[in-house]
Amino acid sequence: MVDTATGSYANPAGAYTRDSNYITTRITADGHDGYPVEPGRYRLVVSRACPWANRAIIVRRLLGLEEALSLGVCGPTHDKRSWTFDLDPGGVDPVLGIERIQDAYFARFPGYDRGITVPAIVDVPTGQVVTNDYAQITLDLSTEWRAYHRPGAPDLYPEPLRAEIDAVNEVVYADVNNGVYRCGFAGTQQAYEEAYHRLFDRLDWLSARLAGQRYLVGDTITEADVRLFTTLVRFDAVYHGHFKCNRQKLTEMPVLWAYARDLFQTPGFGDTVDFDHIKRHYYQVHRDINPTGVVPVGPDLAGWLTPHGRETLGGRPFGDGTPPPPPRPDETVPAEHTPLGRVPR
Amino acid sequence: MVDTATGSYANPAGAYTRDSNYITTRITADGHDGYPVEPGRYRLVVSRACPWANRAIIVRRLLGLEEALSLGVCGPTHDKRSWTFDLDPGGVDPVLGIERIQDAYFARFPGYDRGITVPAIVDVPTGQVVTNDYAQITLDLSTEWRAYHRPGAPDLYPEPLRAEIDAVNEVVYADVNNGVYRCGFAGTQQAYEEAYHRLFDRLDWLSARLAGQRYLVGDTITEADVRLFTTLVRFDAVYHGHFKCNRQKLTEMPVLWAYARDLFQTPGFGDTVDFDHIKRHYYQVHRDINPTGVVPVGPDLAGWLTPHGRETLGGRPFGDGTPPPPPRPDETVPAEHTPLGRVPR
Repeated sequence: MVDTATGSYANPAGAYTRDSNYITTRITADGHDGYPVEPGRYRLVVSRACPWANRAIIVRRLLGLEEALSLGVCGPTHDKRSWTFDLDPGGVDPVLGIERIQDAYFARFPGYDRGITVPAIVDVPTGQVVTNDYAQITLDLSTEWRAYHRPGAPDLYPEPLRAEIDAVNEVVYADVNNGVYRCGFAGTQQAYEEAYHRLFDRLDWLSARLAGQRYLVGDTITEADVRLFTTLVRFDAVYHGHFKCNRQKLTEMPVLWAYARDLFQTPGFGDTVDFDHIKRHYYQVHRDINPTGVVPVGPDLAGWLTPHGRETLGGRPFGDGTPPPPPRPDETVPAEHTPLGRVPR
Repeated sequence: MVDTATGSYANPAGAYTRDSNYITTRITADGHDGYPVEPGRYRLVVSRACPWANRAIIVRRLLGLEEALSLGVCGPTHDKRSWTFDLDPGGVDPVLGIERIQDAYFARFPGYDRGITVPAIVDVPTGQVVTNDYAQITLDLSTEWRAYHRPGAPDLYPEPLRAEIDAVNEVVYADVNNGVYRCGFAGTQQAYEEAYHRLFDRLDWLSARLAGQRYLVGDTITEADVRLFTTLVRFDAVYHGHFKCNRQKLTEMPVLWAYARDLFQTPGFGDTVDFDHIKRHYYQVHRDINPTGVVPVGPDLAGWLTPHGRETLGGRPFGDGTPPPPPRPDETVPAEHTPLGRVPR
């Protein structure tokens, strides 16, 4: 089962296997891969639907890299070829001048045959994708782009905590971030059930860890929280029903639900989330598991804005730094795609 | 979209329309349709998966008709032709001697081309289906079979309340019992959304009605409660995800959740419910909306056995009557298909 969004397939035993062959060129302060950090040179291309891209949107916001690294936003759905810039006037990205992110992949590697994915960072002068290695992208925004961070930017990947962050990220990736896909795209009942139990066992482990501490590692927000958040915020909207991750809803797992609301209400997290794009992407693109393409009206989103009570656990969300200012007007998620705009009928 | 389980289809505007042409012959005390009530003469054929059949199973239990009207149980899944007796030794119903309920339809009407549905009542001597008119079946069990009710059987359709029961049943049928199917089988986004809002508007109306009274009509259990229960008990297991009825789970609608638990814990209700059959039926049969046939492991069922607190509203569950005794051993749902058997891993 090839999925164009993820370049992935189910193996002969029915287990979902993510294509993890990415373009691993790095944009670094010293430019050792040929792509030095330069403000205004690169464009981060995302879809707000995609959890892997959502990580980069959040980290860019938290670090205040909006001026240094511009943002191109693809629409929530795509055809077999790739994500498109259908939200932009004329369906063309105003900076890159292309209709599909696929064009930037081909500009770098003619005939590129791996997954055409977001997030991708494009070198604007050449129109070529530099990297789509989503896991490295956010770490490099934290470490290599430091010269362009806003004053008060938090340290999302502090040196003394990196080993612990990496260890948490590894299990969260395997069992949760990718685990929900392993549930949803399982080709057999057995593969699904194995993924389901791994997922919920890990969520129980995370609940226990987060019962007494506000954030996953240390007492401030780190990369580990960003990575868990982008899966949790999609849980009830898509993974619970569409991917059959249905032991409970997130709203029925008290610790994780409070943790997720805490982050959602923190500047830089919830203000990047477009529930309309999220739901339309999964339900309209994955016709192999949702043949009608009908997009659920639910769930009710009002709960995301309710008090979470996690302040009593202490913690310093931004450490010695400060919260980011509100999103730029041209990067603001439409209110009707957020809990604020969901007026009950 | 023809559904063999329901004999139903989506009309050109994408709205789901239930085939409501049933065999309306009645089994009555006076035998005016040629089929007089006689103990031992008829067999009620059901699937425990099916909400329409579940009504008849519950009413037969509450009224103590087990000795007078025997029970044939089809398996949870079926092929294009019809429900089969695959749970029975050799795949043959031991009383009717047939493999598929379709055979009993054909015995009555050769070439019968409407929906082959359960519940159906079969005249054992001729092997012919007498009726599959599920709405009339339960009313007739209450009124026409009265001579064979157990001592202490409740009056589920009391004369003074019939007009109100009928009125409640009518809106519950249109918006809830059939409303969940209208959500799940909608052929267009618009048809789905209309069904969704009708469903949840009606559930809100029901929540308001049930906030201050224990049962839907009067102060005892009636036919109206039976009809609402069989949809509510399936809500989180199948309708929430599979049919996209996902504003909230039942567990997130406090009044309805307590009401449903109250009934579930009442003898004659929860002891008829086979969650394994329910989930396998919907997820394995409806390949048009679940192509993989993978059956979700969730939801966690433990909540069904928790205290509901509805006793404080008063009410006399069985009126002047008494609860039914436990199910017969040969009609007991396997513990592993119930909340009792769901031991957390």
